[in-house]
Order: sequence, then structure tokens, then C-alpha cells
Amino acid sequence: MDVVIIGGGAAGLKAASRIRRKDAEANITVVDAGKYVSLGRCGLPYYVGGIIHEIDNLRETTYGAVRDEDYFRRLKNIDVLTQTRAVEIDRNRKAVKIIRGESEDELNYDYLVLATGSVPSKPPIEGIDAEGVVTLTSAEDAEKIVELWEEGAEKAVIIGAGLIGLESAEALKNLDMDVTVIEMMNRVAPALLDREMANLVENHLREKEVKVLTSTRVERIITENDRVSAVVADGKEFAADVVVIATGVKPNTELAVNSGLKIGETGGIWVNSRMQTSDECIYAGGDCVETTHLVTGKKILAPFGDVANKHGRIIGENITGGDVQFPGVIGTSVFKIFDYTVASAGVNETSARDAGIDFMTVIVPCPDRAHYYPRTSYIRLKLIVERGTWKVIGAQAVGTGEVAKRIDVISAAIQNGMTIDQLSNLDLAYAPPYSPALDPVITAANVAMNKRDGLFDGINSFELKKMLESEDIVVLDVRSEDEFKERRIESEKVINIPILELRERLDEIPRDKKIVVVCAIGLRSFEALRTLKGAGYKDVMILEGGMAFWFD
Amino acid sequence: MDVVIIGGGAAGLKAASRIRRKDAEANITVVDAGKYVSLGRCGLPYYVGGIIHEIDNLRETTYGAVRDEDYFRRLKNIDVLTQTRAVEIDRNRKAVKIIRGESEDELNYDYLVLATGSVPSKPPIEGIDAEGVVTLTSAEDAEKIVELWEEGAEKAVIIGAGLIGLESAEALKNLDMDVTVIEMMNRVAPALLDREMANLVENHLREKEVKVLTSTRVERIITENDRVSAVVADGKEFAADVVVIATGVKPNTELAVNSGLKIGETGGIWVNSRMQTSDECIYAGGDCVETTHLVTGKKILAPFGDVANKHGRIIGENITGGDVQFPGVIGTSVFKIFDYTVASAGVNETSARDAGIDFMTVIVPCPDRAHYYPRTSYIRLKLIVERGTWKVIGAQAVGTGEVAKRIDVISAAIQNGMTIDQLSNLDLAYAPPYSPALDPVITAANVAMNKRDGLFDGINSFELKKMLESEDIVVLDVRSEDEFKERRIESEKVINIPILELRERLDEIPRDKKIVVVCAIGLRSFEALRTLKGAGYKDVMILEGGMAFWFD
Repeated sequence: MDVVIIGGGAAGLKAASRIRRKDAEANITVVDAGKYVSLGRCGLPYYVGGIIHEIDNLRETTYGAVRDEDYFRRLKNIDVLTQTRAVEIDRNRKAVKIIRGESEDELNYDYLVLATGSVPSKPPIEGIDAEGVVTLTSAEDAEKIVELWEEGAEKAVIIGAGLIGLESAEALKNLDMDVTVIEMMNRVAPALLDREMANLVENHLREKEVKVLTSTRVERIITENDRVSAVVADGKEFAADVVVIATGVKPNTELAVNSGLKIGETGGIWVNSRMQTSDECIYAGGDCVETTHLVTGKKILAPFGDVANKHGRIIGENITGGDVQFPGVIGTSVFKIFDYTVASAGVNETSARDAGIDFMTVIVPCPDRAHYYPRTSYIRLKLIVERGTWKVIGAQAVGTGEVAKRIDVISAAIQNGMTIDQLSNLDLAYAPPYSPALDPVITAANVAMNKRDGLFDGINSFELKKMLESEDIVVLDVRSEDEFKERRIESEKVINIPILELRERLDEIPRDKKIVVVCAIGLRSFEALRTLKGAGYKDVMILEGGMAFWFD
Repeated sequence: MDVVIIGGGAAGLKAASRIRRKDAEANITVVDAGKYVSLGRCGLPYYVGGIIHEIDNLRETTYGAVRDEDYFRRLKNIDVLTQTRAVEIDRNRKAVKIIRGESEDELNYDYLVLATGSVPSKPPIEGIDAEGVVTLTSAEDAEKIVELWEEGAEKAVIIGAGLIGLESAEALKNLDMDVTVIEMMNRVAPALLDREMANLVENHLREKEVKVLTSTRVERIITENDRVSAVVADGKEFAADVVVIATGVKPNTELAVNSGLKIGETGGIWVNSRMQTSDECIYAGGDCVETTHLVTGKKILAPFGDVANKHGRIIGENITGGDVQFPGVIGTSVFKIFDYTVASAGVNETSARDAGIDFMTVIVPCPDRAHYYPRTSYIRLKLIVERGTWKVIGAQAVGTGEVAKRIDVISAAIQNGMTIDQLSNLDLAYAPPYSPALDPVITAANVAMNKRDGLFDGINSFELKKMLESEDIVVLDVRSEDEFKERRIESEKVINIPILELRERLDEIPRDKKIVVVCAIGLRSFEALRTLKGAGYKDVMILEGGMAFWFD
């Protein structure tokens, strides 16, 4: 059996290795246009930022062997042809034309695997091809950025505040550069986060002295002698020695298109759940294909390293006589941005609305371990719950603590269709160094049940601001006097009654006005709201997430 | 509505708070025999070890209020009677007799909640009541241990190597005491771990200079002037200034028994899934009740703080007109022992066998983040999978890395009945600082599928030792020469061929012998096994978990 694999990234090489493990005889050839194969590209920002010292670290095995051509030949009897371009597929003859340096050749296949990955999606603006304007998707890109820095580059502008953009911001800040991030949408990490969660990240970036501009459109790049000198956005000029274009990637489908394979509505190669393209002898996986979102049922692009690895395994399995299926994804993601971990799974408000889902949200800041245990951090967790079924369909979390754990657990819950009631009783591992007695995941489910059952109404920071401007409300801050002095909502409509004094001081709270209760994270507000309701107050709500979610 | 709650721990106070949140009018009285209520008892070992400085920290809210009688009265309008014993329940008259100091009183109830917790289960040995012999289940216990230490105690013997025993070992070692742990079973943490996983923990304890004796029975405690001076176990004497009895707890059911409530086969109070006892006006929750194990279907005791909190909420909900059910547990647990996190969920081999389940296991050491990312730790993960259904039914993990996260995710998988095939494609959050591209959870599922599908056979350290003694085998170590020099299986039957040279040196490997392949963690062994199988070798297996699971 002859197998040709185009693309030596995660999907391609995982498929190759899987085939070899199951079939000792197959002839396996991997063709890749680049210099390196099997490069852990997700590690590139950490190479730029100096956290990882050698590019080669990104293509080593756990036991320190560099995964180069020799490694694949000797270890797995797989032929890897680097710096080799696959230029044409002849599906009738089952042959791939390749070009290597000056010479042209042809490879015959019984099965072909397209693992052609993605290419950066660059905006069509003036100056985009100037010296100093880079992307960060290849080893060469990373080396180029480091080279520019070594040559003295001091000011960086990053266009796009998605995952790669923000990781690049941290990397360049680590190099002590002056960093500005410009994002077209109204928030950072828009694919992952809703606005209030993104605000937390933006505040953290500012703490770390990264400038962030949202709702800002880049117009052009100014050059001097073909070198970038500034970026113009919303009419303003931002000086730049380096510009990182981080406006996303698009599937690399050129070969697939040219050979008449079906392309999906997203622009990715169409595959069935066995990862077969419209030609049953041609499989495809990784960044170049589209996949199914398990919450919305829609086709989406999921250009992630973990997904590519899973695709590769499934392709290898099916080519060697297996019959396994890839179910799809829910977009579970995580990234590190300075001291914060940011993660999400399932839908956010934007994607839920786009999918026509009727949903409810709760915001729950929680300690990530027993609050009395040293070095406890707060996680800010948001759940998105489908109304009616009360299934969890999305989650976002931001903070310095164990954020990734909670999103992974909720991700498993979403993929199993768990309701908030079921989530509330999930048996999770508790000990003071690892979790409060009720894990943030469970607390979030409990808060969601309280909201569903009408035990409280909540509003967010943006809504409260509008109310303060236009309505005759009372904001009841139930924190201690010290907490109140330190930071509070600045308005004459705010009164401070510490929670322990609330029952004794009810006469200070007007019965004829709308009352919004505020505390640090929402816990005391809920207690206060229940007390007020019990005392006959009708129109009471809380600021969800408390002062942790109040944006001045 | 009058509600009386006996027991001011997690279950009792959570029930009380929940009732108040839903019912402003109810008269709620909590009766507790101790001095403090609402004490985070799981934090006691950390108080002893000096990690938490004040006992009061363990009964503070997240916002620093001490949860004492005044707190409950002012904040929640709940009457908490401390140092008050409930001595008799008159179910006909719906009244509880209480004794407070000299005075006796009676409380009437519409609903009664038994949250009487657990009491230490002490072995019936000579000297158990001597001065210096303590348990660690109350604030008084913790204060007593610190007092003994302050008075100059230097040698501690801990009887029982369960969760509390091991946490106590770390705490006392932190105080620079000489610590010996004696366990009757053949391994530490026997309720959580199988033998090879427990071995890892024992090795770590020894690294930290804690002496560990397993399969060792304590015979008696020797005293001098009514003070402990030594512990005798298996005929040997161990000098001791402090002895911590950590041989488990048993449900405190005295009141329930005396009032004729149904007691379960486990010795815990029987409750239905609504947490009602055999008297529908009496609810019970926390350590004093039994619950259902969701994998085995058996009744078990689950004396854990998180479970008690969940019980409390459900009781409060149901007493105020709700109808919610507690599904049961799968015994998900975690503890910290020095640099290691140890966690488990579902069944282990012992409990699976007891339940008559036919199962398969795999052992998978994995880096807990991208292996090229700095400070990556190894997690040693074990999966237990039901044969036939191929559902994950148990997991254990030990290591310095993000162990708790993986167990929580697998716990969610177990509770949702996920198969290894489903787990293999779970969408988890990947970025280099948080996970390898394929999370250890997914890798473990993949390894399990490989084993199920016959792609490899594995044996463990104990089996290999026996084979080395009695069979004419070849152990093929495929690590590098340096790795091999550093630490290896000491036997003439071992040969070293680094994995990259394997295909070229096949002629050095006899075709007529059983071959056991060994590497660092099992990854290269699997590769080598597939290579040998491909080259026609028939009888090949791997040491599961590699040298990470070789116990000299």
C-alpha cells in the first residue's frame, strides 16, 4: 500500500505514524514545503519571548530526539521529503506531482492525505508586505521577529487581538518592547470571550503596560525605504519597528480546490466524519478541513494543534482498515497572557445568538482553592445555559488561578449534554490546596439554578451604568466600610451598609425604589437580596460578579 | 415552620442557609456539641503544619467574617447553639431534647436535619487513650498536636496511611519532626490507589524522609506515666512522643439509632435520594449517611466536605418545597503530599474486583504540559476500563504536575458513562503552558484503545520481576545509552538498543524468546514493539509505564 501525505505538521505526521504502527509494510511518504517538519507551532510565541531557547526544542520528542527526516526514516521507516512542494494531484491516475529544488517527480498513491494546514489571513492594506511586517505561524517567522529585535526594534504593533495576537503581545513585552495591540472588534479574544470577560483581560494587559485599542480599524502601514515605520488606525499614527499581523488563518486548500475536491461553506475542505474528502481515496485533516461544532451543529474551522492530532490518528486508523469517526469540536481553547489564564468552551453570547439559541448567563467569581489556603487566586467564571433544556452550552474563565481545569471539566459536561442540575452534583476532587469545598464549576451551576428558579435577578456593569444615568435607583453596597473606601461605584445613588448590619438597618433602605445590591464577588449581594425580598422589598437585583465585574 | 438541625458542620449549616434563602419566615435552630461551628476541617492538617496560621481562618467567609453564632444570627437570622448536645429525639411529638451546660431544654420541629458527622474510628489496642495519642478531626485535636510539639515532641508515629494520615505526615514533617507512618494494608492510600501507584507515593515519602511501613499491624502503644513512649508494630518498637490515629472515621449515628431510624448496611444512616431518612420529617446528610457509588451501584460511606455541602443544599431545597435528588458519588478524591498531588476517581482494581467487574488497566506517564515548555512535570496516570462496554470506570494519578485537573475531567467522563473511544476525542483546552497537544487524558484513552485492539500487551513491574526470576526472557531497553547508564533493570537478561538503531540492529534480538521492551515512560517501547511485530517477532510485550514504574 502506497500512502502519500502532503504536509508534515501534526495531522500529517500523526497519520503517518499511526499507519506505520498498524501496517509494517506500507510505503509512507510525507511531502512538506518547509525546512522543518513536526514543529510544535503553538510554541513559537514562547520561543520569541525567550521562554523556549531553541526552535529545535519545538520538534523534539519527550526523550530529546529531533524529529527530522533521519528520525522518521530510521525510527518509523517513513520517508519525509522536506522543501518539497506538491503541485498537482491527478486523481484518475492516483499520482501527485512534486517539485524539489529543480527536479520534478511523481508519487503514486493508494491513499492520499491532505494535511496542508493553514496560511495567515492578511488584511488587504497598503504596506502589508513591507520589511518588518510579519506573521507568527512558522519557524522562519519566529526567527525573523527575533532578528528584528536583535537589530534594535523597540516598538511593536500587533494587528489582531486573538489568541496569537495576545500571545505575541506577551512575547514582545517579555523582550521589553513597547507593544500596542489593535483590534477591529469591540473586545480582545472575541472568538472566545464576551465583552465583560474580555474587559478583564484588557485591564490585565494595561497593568502589564501593553496598549490595547479595540473597535479600531487599521487603515495602512507607513513605510520608509520599504521598511515599516508606523501603522495608521482610525486616523492616528502608531510608530512601529515591527508589525505582527495576527488576523487569523485560513485553510490552505489550493491543491484540494485545483483537484476538484469538495470545499465546505466555511472555505475548509469538506470531509465526512471518517475524515474522507469527496474522493474516498483522499483523506484530509488538520487546519485545512472544516469540522462540526457540537453545540450549534454548524460547520466551523478549528485550526488547533490538538484537533489536528486527533484528525491524524483517525485518518491513520481508517486508512489501515479501521472505521472510526471524529465527532466534532466545541471550540475549547486556552491561552496564557502574563499572569492570567484565559479559557473558553462551547458557545459565547455572540455565537449562541448567531445560532438562534435562547440562553441565560451567570457570572461567578470564585476562589480557585479553599479561600483560607495560601495563594488562593480568584477565577472569574461565566456560564452560558440553554433556556428550556437548561443544558450548559458555553463557559468562559479568566484569572490567575486554575482556570484551565474548570474549563476542561465544563467542556466535558457540555459534550455530554449535562444540565446545570447535573453539573451541580458532579463529584469533583476536593482538598483545600485544589478547590473550595464546592468547586467553582459547581458553584456556577448552583448560581445558574438560583437565577433560573427566580431566586435573584442580575444585571451587568454596562446595564448598571445606564441605570445610574437614567433611573432613580439605589445601589446598596453591602461590603465592609474598608472595602467600600478602597474602591466603589462613584455615584450619589450608592449607600453602604455592611452585610452583617443589614437586618438592623433596613429602615435606611427605601421601599419605593429599584435596588441594585453590590458586593465584592456577588456572594453577599445574593444573601442581601434574599434578606430584602424576605422583608418585602419587591424590586431588587444584584450586580452580577460584584465589584470584580464593575468597569469604571 | 420550625426546623431543627443537629450538627453545625458543612451539611447542617448549608441546609440552614439554604432554608433561609428560600424561606424568610422559618425558625431555624442549629445545635452543635462543639465550641466552633462551620469549621473547614479539611484545613486542619495545614493548620498543624503551619501553612494556615489561625484556627479561625478555617471558619471565615471569603470576605473575612468569622462564622460564629453572632454571624449566623445577624446575617441569616439562624439560631446557632454551640456546646449544646442533642440527646433524644421524640419522633411522635416532633421534639428534640437538648442539654446545654446544666440546663435541659426541648426544641420542637416540623423538620429535623441530622448532620451529626462522623467520629474517629479507633482500633481497640492497649494504650490508645494515653496522653499524646490523638486524632485529627477537630480544632481541639489540631490545637493539642501543636501544643505537644511546642512542648518538645520530636518523634511522631502515624497509624494509618489514608488521606488524613498522609496529610498529617506532611504536616508533622513540616514541623521538623521525625515521622513514621504505619499502615496495615500493603500500600498507602489503599482506598484510592492500586499498588504500583501507591509505590510512587511511598517513594516520594521516603525522599522526604518520612518512614513508611506497609503490611504492618500495630499491636499496642507503650506508655510511661500515662504518656505515650512508643508504638509496637509487628514486634518492633517505634519511639513516639505523639501518635496520630488516622484509621478512618465512622458515621455518628447514635441519635438516629436510638430514635429508631433505619441504618444502612454500611453503618451510615439510610436516606433516599431526596436525603430523607425512614422518617419523612427527618432529613440527614454529610458524614453520617450512606450514599450510592455510581459505578458499582453499591452503598458506601463518603465522609467528604464537598459531599456534605451538596447534601446540605439538597436538604434545604427539599425542606422548602423543592424536589431535588442527590445522584450519588464516584469517590473522586485528591490530596497533596509534599510535592505530589495524588488523586483518584471511580473504582480502583480492588473495588472493581469486589464489585465483580471485568476490567482492563493501562498505565500512562505523561508530561502535564507541552514537553518543551519549561517546568513541565510528569503525571503518572492509570485508567481502569470495563471490558465489553469499554467505559472508563476508574482513574488514578500521581505526580508533581496538574494531576487534579486530569482526574476531574475523567471523573466527569466516568459520571457520563464515556467510553475510551469517546474520551479519545474529547475537546480539551490545549496551549503549551497547560497541556501537551494531546492531553494526558486523551493519550491514556488512546493507549487503552491500543491495548484493547491488541496493538500491544503490557506487564507491570511485579510481573516482570517474577519473569526475570523464572523465565528465559530478553528485556530490550530502547532508551539512549546515557539513560541506560543512569538507571536500569539490573539483570543479565537486559540488552540496550537505542530506539533509533532498532531497525538496523534487529539481528541482535533473538527470535525464539519472549521479549519485554522497556523505555522511560512506555512511548518508545510501544514504537519498538510495533517495529518488532512488523518484523515478525511473535512474543513481545512492554513494561507498562516504563522505568517510571519499575520498582527496584
